[in-house]
Amino acid sequence: MSVEFEPKNMIFRNLGNSGLRVPVFSYGGWLTVGYEQKGDIVKELMKTAFENGINMFDNAEAYNSGESEKEMGAAIKELGWDRRDIIVTTKIFFGTERKSRHNTRGLSRKHIVEGLNKSLENLQLDYVDIVFAHRPDVTVPMEETVRAFNHVIDTGKAFYWGTSEWTPMQIQQAIEIARRLNMIAPIADQCQYNMLSRENFESRLEPLWKYENYGSTVFSALAGGILTGKYNDGVPSDSRHKDNAKRFETEEGKAQLEHVRQVTKIAEKLGTNVSNLALAWVLKHPNASNVILGATKPEQIKENVKALDVIPKLTPEIMAELDKILDNKPKLGESYGRRAEDGTLI
Amino acid sequence: MSVEFEPKNMIFRNLGNSGLRVPVFSYGGWLTVGYEQKGDIVKELMKTAFENGINMFDNAEAYNSGESEKEMGAAIKELGWDRRDIIVTTKIFFGTERKSRHNTRGLSRKHIVEGLNKSLENLQLDYVDIVFAHRPDVTVPMEETVRAFNHVIDTGKAFYWGTSEWTPMQIQQAIEIARRLNMIAPIADQCQYNMLSRENFESRLEPLWKYENYGSTVFSALAGGILTGKYNDGVPSDSRHKDNAKRFETEEGKAQLEHVRQVTKIAEKLGTNVSNLALAWVLKHPNASNVILGATKPEQIKENVKALDVIPKLTPEIMAELDKILDNKPKLGESYGRRAEDGTLI
Amino acid sequence: MSVEFEPKNMIFRNLGNSGLRVPVFSYGGWLTVGYEQKGDIVKELMKTAFENGINMFDNAEAYNSGESEKEMGAAIKELGWDRRDIIVTTKIFFGTERKSRHNTRGLSRKHIVEGLNKSLENLQLDYVDIVFAHRPDVTVPMEETVRAFNHVIDTGKAFYWGTSEWTPMQIQQAIEIARRLNMIAPIADQCQYNMLSRENFESRLEPLWKYENYGSTVFSALAGGILTGKYNDGVPSDSRHKDNAKRFETEEGKAQLEHVRQVTKIAEKLGTNVSNLALAWVLKHPNASNVILGATKPEQIKENVKALDVIPKLTPEIMAELDKILDNKPKLGESYGRRAEDGTLI
Amino acid sequence: MSVEFEPKNMIFRNLGNSGLRVPVFSYGGWLTVGYEQKGDIVKELMKTAFENGINMFDNAEAYNSGESEKEMGAAIKELGWDRRDIIVTTKIFFGTERKSRHNTRGLSRKHIVEGLNKSLENLQLDYVDIVFAHRPDVTVPMEETVRAFNHVIDTGKAFYWGTSEWTPMQIQQAIEIARRLNMIAPIADQCQYNMLSRENFESRLEPLWKYENYGSTVFSALAGGILTGKYNDGVPSDSRHKDNAKRFETEEGKAQLEHVRQVTKIAEKLGTNVSNLALAWVLKHPNASNVILGATKPEQIKENVKALDVIPKLTPEIMAELDKILDNKPKLGESYGRRAEDGTLI
Repeated sequence: MSVEFEPKNMIFRNLGNSGLRVPVFSYGGWLTVGYEQKGDIVKELMKTAFENGINMFDNAEAYNSGESEKEMGAAIKELGWDRRDIIVTTKIFFGTERKSRHNTRGLSRKHIVEGLNKSLENLQLDYVDIVFAHRPDVTVPMEETVRAFNHVIDTGKAFYWGTSEWTPMQIQQAIEIARRLNMIAPIADQCQYNMLSRENFESRLEPLWKYENYGSTVFSALAGGILTGKYNDGVPSDSRHKDNAKRFETEEGKAQLEHVRQVTKIAEKLGTNVSNLALAWVLKHPNASNVILGATKPEQIKENVKALDVIPKLTPEIMAELDKILDNKPKLGESYGRRAEDGTLI
Repeated sequence: MSVEFEPKNMIFRNLGNSGLRVPVFSYGGWLTVGYEQKGDIVKELMKTAFENGINMFDNAEAYNSGESEKEMGAAIKELGWDRRDIIVTTKIFFGTERKSRHNTRGLSRKHIVEGLNKSLENLQLDYVDIVFAHRPDVTVPMEETVRAFNHVIDTGKAFYWGTSEWTPMQIQQAIEIARRLNMIAPIADQCQYNMLSRENFESRLEPLWKYENYGSTVFSALAGGILTGKYNDGVPSDSRHKDNAKRFETEEGKAQLEHVRQVTKIAEKLGTNVSNLALAWVLKHPNASNVILGATKPEQIKENVKALDVIPKLTPEIMAELDKILDNKPKLGESYGRRAEDGTLI
Repeated sequence: MSVEFEPKNMIFRNLGNSGLRVPVFSYGGWLTVGYEQKGDIVKELMKTAFENGINMFDNAEAYNSGESEKEMGAAIKELGWDRRDIIVTTKIFFGTERKSRHNTRGLSRKHIVEGLNKSLENLQLDYVDIVFAHRPDVTVPMEETVRAFNHVIDTGKAFYWGTSEWTPMQIQQAIEIARRLNMIAPIADQCQYNMLSRENFESRLEPLWKYENYGSTVFSALAGGILTGKYNDGVPSDSRHKDNAKRFETEEGKAQLEHVRQVTKIAEKLGTNVSNLALAWVLKHPNASNVILGATKPEQIKENVKALDVIPKLTPEIMAELDKILDNKPKLGESYGRRAEDGTLI
Repeated sequence: MSVEFEPKNMIFRNLGNSGLRVPVFSYGGWLTVGYEQKGDIVKELMKTAFENGINMFDNAEAYNSGESEKEMGAAIKELGWDRRDIIVTTKIFFGTERKSRHNTRGLSRKHIVEGLNKSLENLQLDYVDIVFAHRPDVTVPMEETVRAFNHVIDTGKAFYWGTSEWTPMQIQQAIEIARRLNMIAPIADQCQYNMLSRENFESRLEPLWKYENYGSTVFSALAGGILTGKYNDGVPSDSRHKDNAKRFETEEGKAQLEHVRQVTKIAEKLGTNVSNLALAWVLKHPNASNVILGATKPEQIKENVKALDVIPKLTPEIMAELDKILDNKPKLGESYGRRAEDGTLI
């Protein structure tokens, strides 16, 4: 069942300061693949992604204790893809079981090497394209972590390494240590970014975007579903949405819903829906190299990819209109010193 | 009129990861020396500081456009102190005139060298003990700044260099660049810390205290006077206090005043006043290497130094009581990863 | 006769990857200062520059065998400027006399140190802000040259160093050697750039603009006077213009004159003259950090500075119109590999 | 069918600044092997080369999408040569299919590793002797490319690496980065050089020959057949030569043909033909380490090798005569600085 990779109108971007060119969408296994989704549906989801130009697949050792990697690995094998045609990433930190302790988690040399070995076994691959540190580990000297990720690159188990939810300080430190040791620096952070959550991405991480050309793979671009507009008319009362129901009773929650309703109107004006507008909006940020899509049905992927057509519609005027609605544009306050009047670094 | 340096019961601490031992109090010229205070009173203030164990004097090129440095310099000369007996610090960034532009401010090599040369001329000294970057300068490559501070150290114009109000990322970056270049890293940040303003010092900067043994010289330890208790019974209505009056009308301002009133009671319980309790409280933090005192009258210095006697009274129980009153203990949220349940890094 | 530096509407740019902020115009002594212009007129020219926001002065050891430096140095002294308010640059390579040979010219450590010492003596200054290598010297190992320029920086005789008319390969090599040796890299090339001569600046040097953020100080922005429009109606027949007369008899020369005539019409349309359009046009290039002005009369400087007002008028449409007239936009052919369809590096 | 390697009168040269001694002729698969030539004829061609002292075989992943490598690999296996007796080179950049996109081409770490793995599979070899970057890739940081080629060397998949059609700046940069990182620098450029095309090889690349002792493997030494003299009496009118026919109708084309006719007379004077004179002429350049021969018939190889005997006949007088005829000796203008009057670097 081999298929030819047809990127069609997919957009590719260099991932940070690297030569790896990634599609602006990847398909991720978080909370779906290897959880509810197993076997044929996984294969179908990944095939659909691939046929729509998404040849990048994200996972983590921790996703359902390795089950997610196993499902993806099996699907890759059965789909018969050429390894060179795809980009596979995983993340090391939490171990394969949440209950695991001490040396079976974290960013020690021992766990980075052992964890990645296990992930490759799960994935049935010789190497991943990128291995991410799923979190920072303040209990391990940064130099050990930098060295260990370089070790797995040197031994051919990964081509690049990245970070996930690290502070700007930790990322900068890792980059500078790599420079001192003549080693390979991390290239991208896997982090949250969406219309409702901007502070970290736009303000705190800004110096890394500007000065280090750091890349990113963005998760929660739809804010856990709020930006699909499905709660615009109220949260269903069944227990499954209990948490969200509570959330939208707070002042902040009510305000967010109201913002989403107004964004929905902009989406209609642009001839799209709020999901695709929200995805395109993330990709307007020059350092949002890639947005990870989750999906339980192939149709969702096909639908999400239509966001590519929305990007050109996001004129400076529309972006300003959205900024006004969202009312959460962060001040660029993380860095002091001389700046232009609009707050951008000069 | 030479006097012998008698530190008496002054406490000395190594300033960060350096061999320089600084008294926990220094005397600073900000807003006083070279402004209203000139000539004899400056000499008297500095002599009083010195006689009370405070042999460290802080200044900046920007303090009244160099007038503060000139006053201190003249006083040092007239007091006839042995240069080895005192620690003199200054700060470079803003230039000698606020209106100065472009290359007469900031952290370029040109301004660091020229600015410090001018400061030394003002101070009538061959060198300062520490030169601080008064702010970060995001328009200059960090490597240029690190090199320039090393250049002034290499040419004998300073022994150490530090930062002031830099972000943790910027400090860490400077340290790592210095390591890569085999250069001297900055040793301390001059920053604000007091009972009412804890987030930056205790949380954001925490990784630097823990992992880099970074030092600090603390300003605004009395929160601009609020922690002297002088507004406890209301703000005088005259125009001089107009701004503060407004401030205490806000919800946040009212709450702060209430906290100060409660802290005052603790102070009384400990047989001291709120000022000295507040100063001692800052010095309980192991990385609060030094607190800068401002004073317009010699009595203030003598009074403040009594805070040294309060430090031993700050038992864990008292500290917990104060935390409860202040209700602003920051979560250690800047760094992710494994932590003990009490939030401390493990 | 001290004057206050009033940059007015002058634009300042960081010079390449440095923290030095230079005005987009500097005043240079080439062929004027210390040649025909001496004494009072030099002082008047420099004062006029300064009063119009031009606080940067360019020279070279070779300009009339050091006479140019001596005139500028004397003027600086008499004008009583604060050294911090001005940027002074010189260039080392040719020696102070064209007839000088062997070790009294070139980029050996011996001549760089001895040459700069002599220049500082001529200028009556302790240091220059930037020392340029006036040409590459293929007879000296590049590492020696990089080390020697770092030596004069380390000994306080210059803050930065640059190149002049080096090939891209030589500049890149110097930068990389500096990286390897943990030394200071050159920050800018002094080179020719104008409407009639674009190949070197726009195409050959392009990788340095893009990848190294290299800066430039541009000379011959008016193409030796052709872009003032003074030959639009024919070259005067007197002997002084003999060479130019010949030049404009060639096919290429005739075509150039015709281009200048058409550019003159655009200038009129924009409410300016061809000189100021030509100066503004150079400054539209993001890596044209600074244009060196030559002048024999104060009025010329005042006139040239008006080019600042032309820059905002150079819309993409006007720039395209000029490209069409000039018909010499270089292909970006120096670098191979993947590029966008418009030839820009991607 | 093992044969013994009998280099006879073959000349061997160190390839650039390496210890690898290459014959001055290699046999290359470009446009022949794996295109029209398959199976037995490939084996025969390679055997003939080998028996005439040519034990070096050049290929590329892109040559007919890997078919060329497969044919050569099969032939090597069947010929039963000892791996140690031959030098096999391939080139990575374009991928195995021209239509391939993004990460299946270029000089990212991913494609260098994956591409070479595929080439080795095609060639049925554990390693190549030299892997070339078939083009520069301006979309990948040079440091990543230098690291990736070192990675394939470190993992035993190649002994050396080289460049092909890179600019002097790019080659120098790669060499310097390798020096900084204590890595292996590229040793040779695969580039065009022949009597009719001299600028790049003799002038632009000159600093690399002189200062880095860079090597080369030369292609198109016969200028696509023009230097065989086969067009001396006019281009056949059949469609196969349509493009060449057009080419020789231009002024430049006519001049070139006339030059070839005159060179032919020199060849006759020397008792050889124009092809062998042209090949020998290339090899007179001290940095033309190796000329790649293409051939569809064994006789061609045997004939070409006779050029070895022509080399000693190329006296300074003959070379000067040829320079005069060709009228295209480049000025050594790429590098400025002091030169001898004849233009050579001093």
